[in-house]
Amino acid sequence: METDNWKIVYENWLPEEQAHREALCTLGNGYFAARGAAEESSADGVHYPGTYLAGGYNRLRSEVAGRTIENEDLVNWPNWLSLNFRHPNENWFGLAEVTIIYFRKELDLKNGTLHRHLRFRDQNGRETSLKSTRLVSMAQPHIAALQWELTPENWSGIIEICSALDGTVKNKGVARYQALNDQHLEITATGNDETQHYIYLEARTNQSEISMAQVARTRFYSEFPAQSPLYALEQRANYVAHAFQIPCENQKTVRIEKVVVLYTSRDFAISEPLLEARRAVEHAPDFSELLAAHSLAWQHLWHRCDLVVATNDRTQQILRLHIFHLLQTVSLHTADLDVGIPARGWHGEAYRGHIFWDELFIFSFLNLRLPELARELLMYRYRRLPEARFAARGAGYRGAMFPWQSGSNGREESQVIHLNPKSGNWLPDDTYLQRHINAAVAYNVWHYFQTTGNSEFLNLYGAEMIFEIALFWASLASWSEEKQRFEIKGVVGPDEYHTRYPDAETPGLNNNAYTNFMAVWVLDVALQLSEIIGEKRQAELFEKLKISAAELERWEQISRQMFIPFINHTKQVISQFEGYEALQELDIRKYRETEGKMLRLDRILEKEGLDINRYKASKQADVLMLFYLFSTEKLLDIFTRLGYDFKPEHIFANIIYYEKRTTHGSTLSKIVYSWVLARSNRKRCWGDFQTALLSDIEDIQGGTTSEGIHLGAMAGSVDLVQRCFTGLVMSNHELLLNPVLPDKIYYLELRLKYLGNWLSVKLTQQKLVVAADPDWKNEICLNFRGKMHTLRAGDVQEIDL
Amino acid sequence: METDNWKIVYENWLPEEQAHREALCTLGNGYFAARGAAEESSADGVHYPGTYLAGGYNRLRSEVAGRTIENEDLVNWPNWLSLNFRHPNENWFGLAEVTIIYFRKELDLKNGTLHRHLRFRDQNGRETSLKSTRLVSMAQPHIAALQWELTPENWSGIIEICSALDGTVKNKGVARYQALNDQHLEITATGNDETQHYIYLEARTNQSEISMAQVARTRFYSEFPAQSPLYALEQRANYVAHAFQIPCENQKTVRIEKVVVLYTSRDFAISEPLLEARRAVEHAPDFSELLAAHSLAWQHLWHRCDLVVATNDRTQQILRLHIFHLLQTVSLHTADLDVGIPARGWHGEAYRGHIFWDELFIFSFLNLRLPELARELLMYRYRRLPEARFAARGAGYRGAMFPWQSGSNGREESQVIHLNPKSGNWLPDDTYLQRHINAAVAYNVWHYFQTTGNSEFLNLYGAEMIFEIALFWASLASWSEEKQRFEIKGVVGPDEYHTRYPDAETPGLNNNAYTNFMAVWVLDVALQLSEIIGEKRQAELFEKLKISAAELERWEQISRQMFIPFINHTKQVISQFEGYEALQELDIRKYRETEGKMLRLDRILEKEGLDINRYKASKQADVLMLFYLFSTEKLLDIFTRLGYDFKPEHIFANIIYYEKRTTHGSTLSKIVYSWVLARSNRKRCWGDFQTALLSDIEDIQGGTTSEGIHLGAMAGSVDLVQRCFTGLVMSNHELLLNPVLPDKIYYLELRLKYLGNWLSVKLTQQKLVVAADPDWKNEICLNFRGKMHTLRAGDVQEIDL
Repeated sequence: METDNWKIVYENWLPEEQAHREALCTLGNGYFAARGAAEESSADGVHYPGTYLAGGYNRLRSEVAGRTIENEDLVNWPNWLSLNFRHPNENWFGLAEVTIIYFRKELDLKNGTLHRHLRFRDQNGRETSLKSTRLVSMAQPHIAALQWELTPENWSGIIEICSALDGTVKNKGVARYQALNDQHLEITATGNDETQHYIYLEARTNQSEISMAQVARTRFYSEFPAQSPLYALEQRANYVAHAFQIPCENQKTVRIEKVVVLYTSRDFAISEPLLEARRAVEHAPDFSELLAAHSLAWQHLWHRCDLVVATNDRTQQILRLHIFHLLQTVSLHTADLDVGIPARGWHGEAYRGHIFWDELFIFSFLNLRLPELARELLMYRYRRLPEARFAARGAGYRGAMFPWQSGSNGREESQVIHLNPKSGNWLPDDTYLQRHINAAVAYNVWHYFQTTGNSEFLNLYGAEMIFEIALFWASLASWSEEKQRFEIKGVVGPDEYHTRYPDAETPGLNNNAYTNFMAVWVLDVALQLSEIIGEKRQAELFEKLKISAAELERWEQISRQMFIPFINHTKQVISQFEGYEALQELDIRKYRETEGKMLRLDRILEKEGLDINRYKASKQADVLMLFYLFSTEKLLDIFTRLGYDFKPEHIFANIIYYEKRTTHGSTLSKIVYSWVLARSNRKRCWGDFQTALLSDIEDIQGGTTSEGIHLGAMAGSVDLVQRCFTGLVMSNHELLLNPVLPDKIYYLELRLKYLGNWLSVKLTQQKLVVAADPDWKNEICLNFRGKMHTLRAGDVQEIDL
Repeated sequence: METDNWKIVYENWLPEEQAHREALCTLGNGYFAARGAAEESSADGVHYPGTYLAGGYNRLRSEVAGRTIENEDLVNWPNWLSLNFRHPNENWFGLAEVTIIYFRKELDLKNGTLHRHLRFRDQNGRETSLKSTRLVSMAQPHIAALQWELTPENWSGIIEICSALDGTVKNKGVARYQALNDQHLEITATGNDETQHYIYLEARTNQSEISMAQVARTRFYSEFPAQSPLYALEQRANYVAHAFQIPCENQKTVRIEKVVVLYTSRDFAISEPLLEARRAVEHAPDFSELLAAHSLAWQHLWHRCDLVVATNDRTQQILRLHIFHLLQTVSLHTADLDVGIPARGWHGEAYRGHIFWDELFIFSFLNLRLPELARELLMYRYRRLPEARFAARGAGYRGAMFPWQSGSNGREESQVIHLNPKSGNWLPDDTYLQRHINAAVAYNVWHYFQTTGNSEFLNLYGAEMIFEIALFWASLASWSEEKQRFEIKGVVGPDEYHTRYPDAETPGLNNNAYTNFMAVWVLDVALQLSEIIGEKRQAELFEKLKISAAELERWEQISRQMFIPFINHTKQVISQFEGYEALQELDIRKYRETEGKMLRLDRILEKEGLDINRYKASKQADVLMLFYLFSTEKLLDIFTRLGYDFKPEHIFANIIYYEKRTTHGSTLSKIVYSWVLARSNRKRCWGDFQTALLSDIEDIQGGTTSEGIHLGAMAGSVDLVQRCFTGLVMSNHELLLNPVLPDKIYYLELRLKYLGNWLSVKLTQQKLVVAADPDWKNEICLNFRGKMHTLRAGDVQEIDL
């Protein structure tokens, strides 16, 4: 791999790495995506879908393990990348059938393009160069394009080109979902226009009835000959193509452009999809103009979003890859699509596009750069508030209960059984009991406000969400006479290994420390809201949500008397849940030696007939999430409020205790560990940071990247640099900076938008420089380790560290 | 009519007034609507559609006047109001077939409900009371409900109830569209659930392919008997109903509740429409709970939006009616629908739901109360910027050219021919040449920013629109060697009577003063934008839009050297367009005497074989729009910039000149006249205000209200009170107040949101009181006739007038 920090380059052809590379090299613009080897599908046998669309969900029934279950999946739209050539009466080109003389694949992060340069010799001794360039336009959301430059190196003659829209795609990207129904599309029409300028394909999802139209225009340019080819239409089931012949001359390059437009019935500002797609293809300029506009859009994005990091390793390059994927998943083009933040991007099939809590790791990046997008993502939750209300009511609670895995309409879509690929067993899945997702929603609403100062959003939508979630927590909490405290029973924490007590008949654990603490935090925030939204608006919302003075009194009580379990003999270490310390210890090191570093210990034990619920072994950070989400000050504040004597020096004891017992079966875990170690142990912090950084580029979980990139870990690694290493904390009245830069980083530079104003931060081991953009309208209070600096338009503040 | 200012009451049954009343009494929540007499359809023969949905457009081909034309229409969804009863083996109830003993219809503006109370005697001497209450929920956008309370007054016996979803609706509300194709729907399924709890109907628009599901649940409650009735399903073409029998006892009231849910394929947060509609009906509470939530939502809206006006006439009541309809058309529930502001609400068929420039008269109301909605409405235009770019390029211009009548996808949907009902002739229509719509879009973007201070929106979206529109104006303008000034040729101004020069072969006029002035204003604003969005963002946009330094120089030149025509002999009166003064005078009074006050003189003359283009006769304010849109200071500022010696005292001469020559063929015209007269002639201003106020409630254009309320005039009348009578001007650094309260108003009170802060204004003839809400975060500068007052949280400023 080259050291160019703006590029990911592969210079060898390794078919066995193909799926992983294709996931990393997926292009997208938030609206649709181009993934995979379709362009060379005949070569590697891997047939990934060409396009996914946010919001294109479909719910299908399957027969699995002797029972009927229903699952909702993100739909793969038909593959538009399909383009191939052959010599007449020979096989279509395929990488496996030629001798590769030169191979280079390059993901250009700066310009958002994927380039492939091949030189190969076929079985008849003909040598050919093929350069391809691919883009999914960041300037025009409905457009994608593919360019081929084909050069005969030692031959002349006619070649046949086939440019297709292929609707035979299924959902086949995740091996353990193979038993599930994967046929999501019905192709409703295919054809071409009278002038043969383009082909089209219309499809409809077979349950959710979303319709889609793709239109493709294929043109070729060559010095020889001048006349245009005869296009022949090829139609077969769920497939349409234009085929044509091009005369080629030795050493003369033929250029082929394929421009594709996608519209769906859920788009704004349309009459109907096919009509719009046709018009758009007619108006579409040629490849070079599309590329120029696309590249400019990326330049502007990078200006807002880049992070300059100088180290002796690949940190810079990988951080850019992570930012790149984040911006491809959440872009200005998703703003109108009513989508959330999917765990695996829009182009990975794992988790079926469902929305979990990953936004907790992603929002800070957006709040500080593209706050309008963050607002739209919060609206995604707001629009599902009615469904969350039904869910709460159905479960016997008040307020709103957001689901752990949120599907298209905001319904709980957590699987009810899941496959252990290690054992082949289908097992019950109780992870839906992760009620802590509700705290994450409230946390994100609150921090969006703290960073942007957008009180209008809080007023109109955000406060209502926080109040509804507060109502939920208050109705979930119950008074324990024995403890003389409130408690929350029957839930699951972030550590999904533990879903019930050993031998218990019903799932759920009592007093998960993270959940209880977060509930207290939500109630505390809810009690403060009137200061921001005003008494009048609060009174309106209380009328609407039927919140009484007695209810507020209860919130106050719960937020002062919630039970938090501690490991008894330490009095300092927070217990992951009540009863955790009674579990058996497990020799995790033993398993690490045989099974690798990133363990799915639950699956390994289950295969051995053992239940992970019996052991002190965690999949990922649970208690430690608290140290990740809150500053020490805030943490102590809440513990004091609760009457617990928790001291800053206890934090490290907690880290030590859980580090030994955690397998990091989630990529998010290393983010959290690196974060919580940053101030106490910079060396170990750097190691965990690097592990998190490599999650996808090295596919450290062994094959999960091909199922979709890990967006939370990607954004989390960026957030570590931007907030943790700089000690950045935003509140709606001051910006705190307290850098603790790891030794390995020589220089760090970033731009941030805080309370509507752009500022730049430059940091070395010795110096911090904060500069205000010249167009600031108001002043901002910068708090550096307790010392206040007032920043005004154009100010540059230099601080020695 | 009663004097209760929160109610519109009709106490007599006048079948001939029915269409007009039904338009005024339409209920809606921005998502869908309930209009009309469907409930009593058998009685009055009028069968209005029950529901319209914003965004449900459909384009159909028709054979008209020997040619094939295509028109886009707003679609009427199936009628859900259909509910009726009969005595076994008799006719279904109908108002025309009974003797009416008592009749009262009441639109309750405060609670958003429509009530009807009837007592009647049938041909068999049975007397019955029937009270109905109707709502379209402002709390839950997808739900509407209808309640009947039926009381036998002198009989007992069984009655049959029929509760239907009727998909046989067509677009038949506008007589002069009768030649056009009106069949927009295909009903795709009807049925009921197994438990007979509800009926459903699914439909699809036949060109735009939007699908829709309606589900209705009908329940009855009576003291006698307790058992529930047997529901029978009635299905026929495009129609489904539940029919059942209820035993009634003399003097005992039977209550029937019909709850209906509507979803379409364009909704957010859904899986598919029927699935969501079914779930929603299952979760729906009973009528009283729906009513309570609905009524509370209206209370909260009124708290933001009411305007208290004390006079001796109906002003207060009618202003509330106007605000009511505005809030029913643009509500929080339209925010996710990608809709603009239609000229006739969403429940009138006139103008087919197209988006004109009415937002120019409506935005101020929203900016000052519901700025988040104003933002969404601006996004409606932003989403159609690509289409406006295609249109500009297609017409040979740069930038973006928004259409005069904007359809679903932002395409020009102005009719190419229109019917003159007076003569029966179909005539060419060139009103699409009203390029001034582009200035209105820019004006709205700018004033949204001035009122809200939301620079984020300007930065991300608004500035791009203004620059693109500036590019358009600059490319439309050309240099005249003769005049040594820039000019704009071939357009039409707001006065649609004049579309070409007499005997000209091509349509369009040169140098429409309003258009030229607005172009200058747009260019001036565009040149100022960098101060707000910053140099960096401006540079980005210039790169994207390919705006060079030379282009900016050209903007500067045009904005200083644009030609504005004046009437030669006056040197003071602006000429509506170049050549206007050469037209013939027309004795408008003569026509007023025979044809009434609000003339469509174009149609009258055409019937007489004359061309209105020959005469100095205007449909509506054109030049005078300038005095309406700009303060005198701003006006003089731009005239000075242009090197014209225009003085404040010239304004009145302009008013006098055009007043004589204007027929007020648009309801907007009286708004503008009242506004421009407010400071010079309070008496005549009040007269014009009252005429504007009565536009719909008195149907002053004689039948146009039944085709849909006039939203621009409604909002304009409210805006006259809120901004013109108070002299309210918002800029992003100060709030100007300079009240000139008409004698007839004793007291005026309103609440406004300015730069994110709520304040209240109370005004008498002697005193102005401005009070800041207690939760203000920053201070605001209040400018009262040049004197500055700083307002902070909780401040109350009393000023003697």
